[in-house]
Amino acid sequence: MAGFNAVVLAAGQGTRMKSALPKVLHPVGGLPLVAHVIKAAADAGAEACSVIVPPDAKGFDALRLPIAARFFEQHERLGTAHAVLQARPALETSSLPVVVLCGDTPLVTPDSLARLAAVIANGADMAVMGFNARNPKGYGRLITDASGALVAIREDKDASEAERAITLCNSGILAFRGDLILSLLDRIGNDNAQREFYLTDAVEVARARGLHVACEIIDEDEVRGVNTRAQLAEAEAIFQRRAREAAMAGGTTLIAPDTVTFAHDTIIGQDVVIEPNVIFAAGVVIEDGVTIRGFSHLEGARVGRGSTIGPFARFRPGTVLEAGAHVGNFVELKASHVGEGAKVNHLSYIGDANIGAKTNIGAGTITCNYDGYSKFKTNIGAGAFIGSNSSLVAPVTIGDGAYIGSGSVISEDVPPHALALTRAPQVHKDEWAKKKRARAEAEKRSK
Amino acid sequence: MAGFNAVVLAAGQGTRMKSALPKVLHPVGGLPLVAHVIKAAADAGAEACSVIVPPDAKGFDALRLPIAARFFEQHERLGTAHAVLQARPALETSSLPVVVLCGDTPLVTPDSLARLAAVIANGADMAVMGFNARNPKGYGRLITDASGALVAIREDKDASEAERAITLCNSGILAFRGDLILSLLDRIGNDNAQREFYLTDAVEVARARGLHVACEIIDEDEVRGVNTRAQLAEAEAIFQRRAREAAMAGGTTLIAPDTVTFAHDTIIGQDVVIEPNVIFAAGVVIEDGVTIRGFSHLEGARVGRGSTIGPFARFRPGTVLEAGAHVGNFVELKASHVGEGAKVNHLSYIGDANIGAKTNIGAGTITCNYDGYSKFKTNIGAGAFIGSNSSLVAPVTIGDGAYIGSGSVISEDVPPHALALTRAPQVHKDEWAKKKRARAEAEKRSK
Amino acid sequence: MAGFNAVVLAAGQGTRMKSALPKVLHPVGGLPLVAHVIKAAADAGAEACSVIVPPDAKGFDALRLPIAARFFEQHERLGTAHAVLQARPALETSSLPVVVLCGDTPLVTPDSLARLAAVIANGADMAVMGFNARNPKGYGRLITDASGALVAIREDKDASEAERAITLCNSGILAFRGDLILSLLDRIGNDNAQREFYLTDAVEVARARGLHVACEIIDEDEVRGVNTRAQLAEAEAIFQRRAREAAMAGGTTLIAPDTVTFAHDTIIGQDVVIEPNVIFAAGVVIEDGVTIRGFSHLEGARVGRGSTIGPFARFRPGTVLEAGAHVGNFVELKASHVGEGAKVNHLSYIGDANIGAKTNIGAGTITCNYDGYSKFKTNIGAGAFIGSNSSLVAPVTIGDGAYIGSGSVISEDVPPHALALTRAPQVHKDEWAKKKRARAEAEKRSK
Repeated sequence: MAGFNAVVLAAGQGTRMKSALPKVLHPVGGLPLVAHVIKAAADAGAEACSVIVPPDAKGFDALRLPIAARFFEQHERLGTAHAVLQARPALETSSLPVVVLCGDTPLVTPDSLARLAAVIANGADMAVMGFNARNPKGYGRLITDASGALVAIREDKDASEAERAITLCNSGILAFRGDLILSLLDRIGNDNAQREFYLTDAVEVARARGLHVACEIIDEDEVRGVNTRAQLAEAEAIFQRRAREAAMAGGTTLIAPDTVTFAHDTIIGQDVVIEPNVIFAAGVVIEDGVTIRGFSHLEGARVGRGSTIGPFARFRPGTVLEAGAHVGNFVELKASHVGEGAKVNHLSYIGDANIGAKTNIGAGTITCNYDGYSKFKTNIGAGAFIGSNSSLVAPVTIGDGAYIGSGSVISEDVPPHALALTRAPQVHKDEWAKKKRARAEAEKRSK
Repeated sequence: MAGFNAVVLAAGQGTRMKSALPKVLHPVGGLPLVAHVIKAAADAGAEACSVIVPPDAKGFDALRLPIAARFFEQHERLGTAHAVLQARPALETSSLPVVVLCGDTPLVTPDSLARLAAVIANGADMAVMGFNARNPKGYGRLITDASGALVAIREDKDASEAERAITLCNSGILAFRGDLILSLLDRIGNDNAQREFYLTDAVEVARARGLHVACEIIDEDEVRGVNTRAQLAEAEAIFQRRAREAAMAGGTTLIAPDTVTFAHDTIIGQDVVIEPNVIFAAGVVIEDGVTIRGFSHLEGARVGRGSTIGPFARFRPGTVLEAGAHVGNFVELKASHVGEGAKVNHLSYIGDANIGAKTNIGAGTITCNYDGYSKFKTNIGAGAFIGSNSSLVAPVTIGDGAYIGSGSVISEDVPPHALALTRAPQVHKDEWAKKKRARAEAEKRSK
Repeated sequence: MAGFNAVVLAAGQGTRMKSALPKVLHPVGGLPLVAHVIKAAADAGAEACSVIVPPDAKGFDALRLPIAARFFEQHERLGTAHAVLQARPALETSSLPVVVLCGDTPLVTPDSLARLAAVIANGADMAVMGFNARNPKGYGRLITDASGALVAIREDKDASEAERAITLCNSGILAFRGDLILSLLDRIGNDNAQREFYLTDAVEVARARGLHVACEIIDEDEVRGVNTRAQLAEAEAIFQRRAREAAMAGGTTLIAPDTVTFAHDTIIGQDVVIEPNVIFAAGVVIEDGVTIRGFSHLEGARVGRGSTIGPFARFRPGTVLEAGAHVGNFVELKASHVGEGAKVNHLSYIGDANIGAKTNIGAGTITCNYDGYSKFKTNIGAGAFIGSNSSLVAPVTIGDGAYIGSGSVISEDVPPHALALTRAPQVHKDEWAKKKRARAEAEKRSK
């Protein structure tokens, strides 16, 4: 795989998104559009990237990227060549090939980018990625000669009738020899109606210098740009379709694939069964043989081999289940470790807790982990039994094999194998309910 | 926009629905079919409507409609002209144009109806709404002359081969000059196989009197009738697709549009993010910048700017969240007001309550708002902290900044800034759990 | 309907499933593939079946089948004729027609199989089920003569260009006269490249003996085989589409049909309304007039006429609701009986319980039915009121009309019409919360 530098054009305003968030920071599969593009570049061999961003844009700092990235603001919107040239400080210091990418095409694959970079590594001076458009109207057409070399990119409005019939169109992804890109781009002019410096004019500049401009093909779906929320949803749908197909090919049963939502980094083992209506947010690892029942929502969690979770389970970041654990309905786990074979089956909130192996947490158990100011830990040993509807007031430790009576509020540590409970005596008032009913009915009548 | 009167034909039995509910009262987007039609008419300029209903039908009284409506029972099923004539008392007293509509076509748009009404306002004596059918078989064909005027409506079975090739079909929507409709309809006869009075025969009557009958075009999807539950589901799907596209165009992110269900009156702000699997029942307003996580079910609620709700949130009617509130998983709110920045994050039932700004409601908190006979209010001040698993026995007031210990049952008012709790002492019995286990194992062996 | 014996080929390894589970035991609609095939055969008149399974396969014993089944292991993989001959002990003892089926085609219908069996009953010696393939490439073509009798099955690779144009293909489903099948199959040789005994060669053997081989047509969708998880998902999708259409045709409203998941045995009444996102696992019966709100997950439950359940209801096996019951959000029921008009509306776990008619179970109620070793019963009478957040420690009985105070832990039986409660006194510490806040802020400052 040939190394290269990536330049990612991400300075567009994205006004059609109607959003305060810069367009390329909108997520697909939980990852911002521009991060998808950079990840694909990194997987294709990119060693570093320059990202051209709008002035004063917020949110780019927070991107977590797999390769070194420098951000360059484009203060004036003077065209794509002008945009790339904002990365001059980065481009001057490396002679690796340069691949120019669009920050709003999250579906581009590493394979395609690696092929393009290889064209330069194999001797081309410059290369343009083309796609065969289902409907080419509006796109620049790629005019090639008999050898397949690119002769020109003809804008739709300037194309002859014959040229308009060409379906091979400019994707906006280009590659350059690293030692040539600046000299090519610096010679691009803005002698056109919009007074902009067009990156596509580099073809003409290169041809005029007798350089070889190659052409590589990419699937149209990979270069779908996202300009509206509807297009964002379409990109998400394609991302999800890919993720679902990959999961099934790997040996996961998706009963209703269209109802399972994956994140960009979801990892799923073999012989996993996923019922309809499951959402994986970022950071989930599901080991082999796990069953995930419907209406479960998982984020930042590792689920150990052979565990069963849901329906209606919610895992928040920091949740770890060891093998064979059971987590049932209306249960929220957060920053908690559930030991091998342990069970939390009903209506519980478990936060900042360790639960030992084979411990059983009764229905309605709540870890009271927050006092309004700080969070505290609950430690529960192995083989313990927490009676239903208990409140465990952290910080608190419950020993191995201990037993908590139903409905208790446990605020002091419980020794191993002890019973602990808090309970007021049960009081009866005979016939009270009958009298109350009579009173209520009398009141109703008197109204 | 020209004013008009609407007559809505809603007397069909709908036997193919297999339902005790009259067909046109089945809902799409949470609103009965016939109410969609009347709403479209009202938005197109209708000032009042007459609805022709089956005899002794139940449920029409409960309709909440945007314009005045009179209901006329059709006791004998003698055809569409006979049906319209049931509204004679209403038609006699107004000279506004009359638009006749079908009560089972919920997808008709105000635009189309306004166009039809305008045809009368602009001088036509009568007008028929036609649509170009993908498959015209079975529909009456609209026969027009060179000037575009309607000559006749030819029933499928009576059509010549040439006429059968016509795809322009009768939608069942017609308009009339208000001062002409009764005289036209009164001259329609029933000299046909079914002995019915057909509204379409008005064309012939009008032509015979030398009146001008115009023709207007509507999209086929707008006049899809609902006769079966499957067609009801198709109409719902089109309604939902429109609502999803409108939400995205307005600046809302729908990660998986097909999994979000809107109601007829859902209002969504800008930069709202909606995760997969969210249901909006009637009466929901979502302000700007709100995030709604998956598996949330909202009805009759206003969610303030920048709030975050779900996953697994349920809002019932009367729920109001002020800006920046947080409502988390497995939380039900009903007839409650949640102050700015307040949090109700886990496994709680909050009914008939006021929660002050920045108050934190702990996991598992229950407002005990019902004593079996009446509902009572819970008032919680600002900046309060309700410990987890608490029961608040209404009527009860908890002051600003008060603090409730975990697992308490609060039945008396709590002063501002006080701590309140109910707690039995924690008791330990050493080795009890070990003995219980030994006993249980002995029992199992003895079986 | 003609009786017959079925032979089901289910010995395939299914390696492309990437699963430890034998391929035909993967479920569609909650029922293993092979059980769908056997159920279709039984509904078509099969009296018994022989299932050819892989050696040492696990899980076949647990199949619950509607007709007697004998399992025969195929130890060597020597072709389909060899597979059928493993059932020799069963085939020798009956002269009923034999229908050979594939265990991985769960969508085959009883109608089609009955038609095939009738062909034998009506005099054919053997019959092959063909389907018209959308893309015949790779399938064996059925070569028929002018009379419609089957002349040969030509493998794709052996077919002439003219034969390749034939779209009628071998489905793998065949039928034989019961007194002929063994003598035909015993004469099939393995003189071919793979050295396998092909069941399709029976056509040639029969023709050579002057027997009549008929041909019957089946829809391609019915004979889709499942070889991958993606094909499993496709079969599930078709199964679900059929179930949804059947439900709607029967008078059930599905607001969003694609989001409702049925099981193979779901029974739904008339005028039932099902909101989006509902999962029916096995064993559910819904009576007339029930409303099921979104995000409900039901298994092994009977829901009585006019009941309302959900959203967010979970019913586990053994749940029975009598007429007019209400079960609301975040409620789990298991092995419990809910009386007529009773209500369990919020955040409750009800297991191993009987709830009397018109009883109201308050929010957050938990039946503590498990002591870590055994399960115990909770009996609640009619007209009782269980205050919110109560814990009912089983075994326990609460009498008719009794009233439990909120937040109580009830471990002793409560007489009819009595009030029972457990409650520690409410204690206040004035200004405590203010001091705590001051302390917390001081700590924060000192950090």
